[in-house]
Amino acid sequence: MDYEIFELGDVRLQGGATLRGCRLAYKTFGTLNAAKDNVIVYPTWYSGQHYENEWLVGPGMALDPAKYFIIIPNMLGNGLSSSPSNTPEPYNGPRFPKVTACDNVRVQHRLVTEKFGISRIRMVTGWSMGALQTFHWGALYPDMVERIAPFCGSAKCSRHNFVFLEGVKAALTADAAFAGGWYTEKPNIGLRAMARVYAGWGFSQSFYREQLDLKTLGYSSLEDFLVAFWEGFFLPKDANNLLTMLWTWQHGDISDNELYHGDFRKALGAIKARAYVMPGETDLYFPPADSEFEVANMPNAKLIPVPSIWGHFAGGPGTNPVDVKFIDDKLKELLAS
Amino acid sequence: MDYEIFELGDVRLQGGATLRGCRLAYKTFGTLNAAKDNVIVYPTWYSGQHYENEWLVGPGMALDPAKYFIIIPNMLGNGLSSSPSNTPEPYNGPRFPKVTACDNVRVQHRLVTEKFGISRIRMVTGWSMGALQTFHWGALYPDMVERIAPFCGSAKCSRHNFVFLEGVKAALTADAAFAGGWYTEKPNIGLRAMARVYAGWGFSQSFYREQLDLKTLGYSSLEDFLVAFWEGFFLPKDANNLLTMLWTWQHGDISDNELYHGDFRKALGAIKARAYVMPGETDLYFPPADSEFEVANMPNAKLIPVPSIWGHFAGGPGTNPVDVKFIDDKLKELLAS
Repeated sequence: MDYEIFELGDVRLQGGATLRGCRLAYKTFGTLNAAKDNVIVYPTWYSGQHYENEWLVGPGMALDPAKYFIIIPNMLGNGLSSSPSNTPEPYNGPRFPKVTACDNVRVQHRLVTEKFGISRIRMVTGWSMGALQTFHWGALYPDMVERIAPFCGSAKCSRHNFVFLEGVKAALTADAAFAGGWYTEKPNIGLRAMARVYAGWGFSQSFYREQLDLKTLGYSSLEDFLVAFWEGFFLPKDANNLLTMLWTWQHGDISDNELYHGDFRKALGAIKARAYVMPGETDLYFPPADSEFEVANMPNAKLIPVPSIWGHFAGGPGTNPVDVKFIDDKLKELLAS
Repeated sequence: MDYEIFELGDVRLQGGATLRGCRLAYKTFGTLNAAKDNVIVYPTWYSGQHYENEWLVGPGMALDPAKYFIIIPNMLGNGLSSSPSNTPEPYNGPRFPKVTACDNVRVQHRLVTEKFGISRIRMVTGWSMGALQTFHWGALYPDMVERIAPFCGSAKCSRHNFVFLEGVKAALTADAAFAGGWYTEKPNIGLRAMARVYAGWGFSQSFYREQLDLKTLGYSSLEDFLVAFWEGFFLPKDANNLLTMLWTWQHGDISDNELYHGDFRKALGAIKARAYVMPGETDLYFPPADSEFEVANMPNAKLIPVPSIWGHFAGGPGTNPVDVKFIDDKLKELLAS
């Protein structure tokens, strides 16, 4: 086991349920300095676990463990932190409560403050749902977070993004083996269907036109890419975990809490952190237009589209080295500012 | 019954099967003049039937029955022409043979020539898969077709478009009730899942951002739009019919025949017709970039993007009056040239 567990006890969630014996799995890199001012928080993305964030961490990179104390908290529902798959009865499986991005960031805040005694964060950054949590850090703890760098993500799930996820969910749950979440065997057909639905969204039209699945990623045919990359990606994952995180994603909104009462502009305006908001230029479910709105309503933010035809995968998980370098350079710039 | 049937007898298909007793359902508007030179052919789109093409036909419109003899042929597999749902054993249901767009246009050509004795066509036009057939008319019968106006479609299914359709197919067939196509009851769950997958693709991110589903189309909520519009659209349709047409779409390619042997540029270059190629500016599965390539390789073509945030539905079926007027005006211009 290459990660730690922070025991949170009973956690009351936004939706009203209490997650008893809630556990937050996390991994750290580097050393917390005496001043406790070298902290970077780097949340995980949809279905990802901490080790799938490590492509952006390393010597010479912006997230350099020689300089920074980097905390990667695993999202609730991702199979390592409390999740449908690892929670005992009666809150197991499809009874696992609805968890918001706000809930996630609040338990991460407890880790950062209670476990490590940290009061200032140099930067929060993340890809996709990691970006959603990054925005939440900025809006929920504006006096604590100095910089945020959300990439290929948004502060609020757009209506179109919501619909895209409805399609993913419908494909997964169309499999009779899913059985309302009470499956006894993995719903393979649904997981494979979900993967094929996702395939069209994850990469851009230009990515497929240029055959980067073959020419750059090295798959032997389009069907090989669909099976080996996409189905292979989702098949090992637990369906209820995926649906828990999908709900979190669909209901992501930095203003949906008692601080902002649904006033999205107000929540954006409250983010004091210096922000680099980096949408992927060809991202089909986090289009740059949504980021433009966010940046226009944030007091200290800069819009930096990632010039890439890799669609959503311009942002991760380390899939395209050119995009990794672009993002890493921008993170260095932001950290130096 | 508001349409006619043309009996084709035994039709040998590109894929090797013979469709015995093949029937082409069609509807005509207006009168064929003595010179037989006032003909417009207007093929149907994915899952659409002739009456769902009629929004572009009428007095004062480009497709004016007072001037033109307009033929709307129903695509094979659409439930009116020979289809899985209406073909007797042994070629019924999932055994219905694979049909190409080339096969479709060849039987339409037989209708036009054998039934009506037509040798010149003023214009072929169509939306989406209707555009695919329009391109085929231009490439297969270059000396017969004077003008083509494909809108929101392509001459060849792009790899990304193929992947999008893989997702649609996977969602439909994930339903155990589908039973490999041998369903005894309609696979409702699969049809609804397919509808939800389609929902994110059919309209653009901006369409959803601007809430046109509510503000213009008048649905009462996003969920209402997903159920009433999208699920309501696919639920009445036959699953095997949908899969037959989906295969036709995925394998659409004007060069995949003995005339062009897969040489796509050559096939585009062979289209003599004056062409208005009209992609929707925000169409997610027929992006303008694909049309640009087509137009660049056609000798007599003009690229005219439809300025609309209605995504694929900029082109039909009469959903947005502003787009209808734009397309109708361009068709008038093309017909007058």
